[in-house]
Amino acid sequence: MKTAAMEPSIKTVNEALRHITASLYRKDVLLTWERTEAELETVMTVAAALKVLFENNVRTRPFSSGLAVSQFRDNSTRTRFSFASAANLLGLTVQDLDETKSQIAHGETVRETSNMVSFLSEAIGIRDDMFLGAGHTYMQEVSRSLDQGFADGVLHQRPTVVNLQCDLDHPTQSLSDLMHLRNTFGSLENLHGKKMVMSWAYSPSYGKPLSVPQGIIGLMSRFGMDMVLAYPEGYSLVDEVVEVARRNSATSGGSFTVTQSMDEAFRDADIVYPKSWAPFAVMQKRTELLKKDQTEALKDLEKECLAKNAHHKDWECTEAKMKLTNGSKALYMHCLPADISGVSCKEGEVSASVFERYRNDTYKEAGYKPFVIAAMILSGRFKDPAKVLQHLIEKNEPRIKGEA
Amino acid sequence: MKTAAMEPSIKTVNEALRHITASLYRKDVLLTWERTEAELETVMTVAAALKVLFENNVRTRPFSSGLAVSQFRDNSTRTRFSFASAANLLGLTVQDLDETKSQIAHGETVRETSNMVSFLSEAIGIRDDMFLGAGHTYMQEVSRSLDQGFADGVLHQRPTVVNLQCDLDHPTQSLSDLMHLRNTFGSLENLHGKKMVMSWAYSPSYGKPLSVPQGIIGLMSRFGMDMVLAYPEGYSLVDEVVEVARRNSATSGGSFTVTQSMDEAFRDADIVYPKSWAPFAVMQKRTELLKKDQTEALKDLEKECLAKNAHHKDWECTEAKMKLTNGSKALYMHCLPADISGVSCKEGEVSASVFERYRNDTYKEAGYKPFVIAAMILSGRFKDPAKVLQHLIEKNEPRIKGEA
Amino acid sequence: MKTAAMEPSIKTVNEALRHITASLYRKDVLLTWERTEAELETVMTVAAALKVLFENNVRTRPFSSGLAVSQFRDNSTRTRFSFASAANLLGLTVQDLDETKSQIAHGETVRETSNMVSFLSEAIGIRDDMFLGAGHTYMQEVSRSLDQGFADGVLHQRPTVVNLQCDLDHPTQSLSDLMHLRNTFGSLENLHGKKMVMSWAYSPSYGKPLSVPQGIIGLMSRFGMDMVLAYPEGYSLVDEVVEVARRNSATSGGSFTVTQSMDEAFRDADIVYPKSWAPFAVMQKRTELLKKDQTEALKDLEKECLAKNAHHKDWECTEAKMKLTNGSKALYMHCLPADISGVSCKEGEVSASVFERYRNDTYKEAGYKPFVIAAMILSGRFKDPAKVLQHLIEKNEPRIKGEA
Repeated sequence: MKTAAMEPSIKTVNEALRHITASLYRKDVLLTWERTEAELETVMTVAAALKVLFENNVRTRPFSSGLAVSQFRDNSTRTRFSFASAANLLGLTVQDLDETKSQIAHGETVRETSNMVSFLSEAIGIRDDMFLGAGHTYMQEVSRSLDQGFADGVLHQRPTVVNLQCDLDHPTQSLSDLMHLRNTFGSLENLHGKKMVMSWAYSPSYGKPLSVPQGIIGLMSRFGMDMVLAYPEGYSLVDEVVEVARRNSATSGGSFTVTQSMDEAFRDADIVYPKSWAPFAVMQKRTELLKKDQTEALKDLEKECLAKNAHHKDWECTEAKMKLTNGSKALYMHCLPADISGVSCKEGEVSASVFERYRNDTYKEAGYKPFVIAAMILSGRFKDPAKVLQHLIEKNEPRIKGEA
Repeated sequence: MKTAAMEPSIKTVNEALRHITASLYRKDVLLTWERTEAELETVMTVAAALKVLFENNVRTRPFSSGLAVSQFRDNSTRTRFSFASAANLLGLTVQDLDETKSQIAHGETVRETSNMVSFLSEAIGIRDDMFLGAGHTYMQEVSRSLDQGFADGVLHQRPTVVNLQCDLDHPTQSLSDLMHLRNTFGSLENLHGKKMVMSWAYSPSYGKPLSVPQGIIGLMSRFGMDMVLAYPEGYSLVDEVVEVARRNSATSGGSFTVTQSMDEAFRDADIVYPKSWAPFAVMQKRTELLKKDQTEALKDLEKECLAKNAHHKDWECTEAKMKLTNGSKALYMHCLPADISGVSCKEGEVSASVFERYRNDTYKEAGYKPFVIAAMILSGRFKDPAKVLQHLIEKNEPRIKGEA
Repeated sequence: MKTAAMEPSIKTVNEALRHITASLYRKDVLLTWERTEAELETVMTVAAALKVLFENNVRTRPFSSGLAVSQFRDNSTRTRFSFASAANLLGLTVQDLDETKSQIAHGETVRETSNMVSFLSEAIGIRDDMFLGAGHTYMQEVSRSLDQGFADGVLHQRPTVVNLQCDLDHPTQSLSDLMHLRNTFGSLENLHGKKMVMSWAYSPSYGKPLSVPQGIIGLMSRFGMDMVLAYPEGYSLVDEVVEVARRNSATSGGSFTVTQSMDEAFRDADIVYPKSWAPFAVMQKRTELLKKDQTEALKDLEKECLAKNAHHKDWECTEAKMKLTNGSKALYMHCLPADISGVSCKEGEVSASVFERYRNDTYKEAGYKPFVIAAMILSGRFKDPAKVLQHLIEKNEPRIKGEA
């Protein structure tokens, strides 16, 4: 595709690579707020470079062998494909760690499993967002186990852990969203002073994780925007992440507001991200019930939660609401799949006409994710990822041979 | 192995590549009867070339990265392995789109899923043969979604859709069968005037799809053969495909006959393809019941259908029936697995001695499929697949290094 | 990692490769006791070479395409990852033969399936340890089918069958263990006269296969050790394998003893391998019940067996037991995952402090397996694997490009 004017060329990519200042060598991006802006820029610069090289048919495989372990504790299509695409782009092969087909249930320690799957592995991608308080903790334990296995000489290399969604954050999503914003508004600097809304929206489905809204406010608050978090009473997020966002906003010269009115939030907004999530309290209760495997109670909780949701069907991103935004044309964002009224459900997060107008935008927004994941692996595994990429640019081997 | 006299050498392959006239660039072979003979010959020429290069240890990977998405809505061994082999041969990595592990159920549109799995994908292989009226329709929608995603700049490349079996056709099977016929009889021209029988046969199992017999009559009717379709009363195929075959036969200078006698069909036949399938009417009823998830009614239907089948146990390809064929030695064909009487079931499609005599033939028949699939991908993704292959022949890099 | 002093360098590896005397070309290592010591040394020499090349960042992919079929008839994590790692290291792509997603149930012959999945395959790894009397028999049939398919010209190459655990043996495990022993004690010669104990140990879980203890006594008895097999009454192994071990010990100048006292076994031992397994008689009964799908009877058998196990909780590898060993510091071995008392279960095979002291050792022990599997594939598929490796050493292409 037709590199858009906004998209950088190989020349500008090469230039950008020269300005990388921070290294993520042997580090994992488990939560964006644990990482400096320079480190996050490293990821985005490397991701942008990989995307441009891909589009210019340049081979980008520093690895000639190696596994990329995937562990999905929740269903996934796009993240699964993004991880597979990222691994493949770099020369790695995905091997799924399917706990239902393994002996892990038999009380094996995380430390042991982490090492056992890593002898020839370069990356481990984990999705674990079902249990509040569990996902991030698990990833930390995997991360520490790999550090130790590497220090002890059990592992020859230290695989990069990629957080493909946990209970607290969804860094590959939020960084893809940020790349989309940077591309749309021209630069991160241009985001300064913009009003961005992360809003709850009605959905007929239940139990959507908190990691996307948390990831968004945790990351986007770092760029001097007027960040608004909107949700109906009772749909608050995990406190510690809201605190992170509040602090980020103060530091970055932006602001952070919470409102219980979607209209108020949308007024004069430059960017809106209307998306459903389950109330924190429900997720907590659900976590407890899931742990105890209480099927009946879980069904009751679901019923109760859906009934509660149904009081807020007016939290839909309609044309009327979009009219309230800056020039009536705020950028609509979504991590997909969206619940589109009249298309994927009767009543949902967004009206069909709004979604259709921004459909290509949201598809392109999603298109950054494979490159963000690849960038995390590359940055975690190489001392100097810029040099690796510059070398690939110089060699300029075709990714596909022949006129495709 | 021992390139048989009949098999072309690299030299003849190179010669054949020079005579390719039709391009399938950015096109899908969803139904063979939608494609010109020149286009189908392109597939077979490319497939034959890939097979010869494989057997001569020539590396054939124009892709150095890229995914080949597989989506199986029905169980499969040989097609799954054929697709995986094809992808691997060209340098692509299979990523399975497993709907049970994805969020697709949540009302996500086909358009969206098709794009989401395709950012770095070069091919999508789909098997969807369970529901009459559904499989082909679904593949068309995927195909259109990819066209649009590519036109909109969401996708950088347009992945090739490979029909790995739908409700109407099974093009990778029928083209493998045709390559086997071409190899056995020396040329497509030599098929002219031959009598080929696609016959129903008894099986103790139930609900076998119609796509193989339909694929066979839809394709083989194009080469001037005397095509005979034989089945007991009530086992007719989808009308529109029978019409296609009738027209093809008229156009190609052959004939097309339907008979309800297996003996009559076999008399003087040069080629016989005895295989079970479910009656069209049963498949329709089954489709309805499957959609409504009516387990009990489905069981009843199965019982009823099996009882009906049991009236036709004489529809078995026995030695006696083979004696009726031309010189008693018609070529026996099957897409495998066959229901072999006394081997894989008590009473089935073919007697053990007939099958055993042609076992190697049927195995070799199956051996074309990986190359046919690879040829479809190559032809769909490259403007000039012949040039791509000629380049690979010139480079002559070993597929396996060292004396294997 | 820090090649330890004990680990060979590329130079010594090159030297070792020059001394390979036996070929496994087109042969499978289904049972170690069917193979000569020279053949097994070939596997270990090639495995050691691959490991050193891996650690020195040398690319080891003689295959530029090709599938490695995996068939797991029992759950597995480490073996699955070991097989995937091995395939990947050599340039092969794993394709799983998942019988639940295939048509194999429909009475298809092993001969047919074996051929159908092998057109472009270079290796088939099989784990089949659930049914006594079945796994090895199945692997033999696959092996013969591939021989025939290759001889008949159906297959262009003869894929190597890798036994990833059967009812009789677990050769990739026992050879990894032997490499660990060789590395720990300096040479195979140094094992002569050592006392090695394969001991049953208590576990709260049930139905652990016999293949590990059988594999250990079947292989380790070949190196002149004083082999002791220890288990409580009623926990004997398959007779034919015990006979193999007895004969091996006699031939190799060692001894073979069976005892029903763990203490006696541990006294002055140099190496201890305490591990749970199900009694042979129970496995036989279980096999019958599994075949008949008798769920209730299986549950009863499990209960009965666990109750029986519970009488032997003193069969735990404690500090007190370790004190009995030679200098109190026998090498503790385990195939993992171990049932660690107070860690992965309340009471188990080994006390936490003993396991923790040997944890890194057991992890490293496990780390040989990917290379053993790769060595089996390489040795089975190449006339002269040493030449293949020497060529790779000469070329010295980086496995990972850039400073990782």
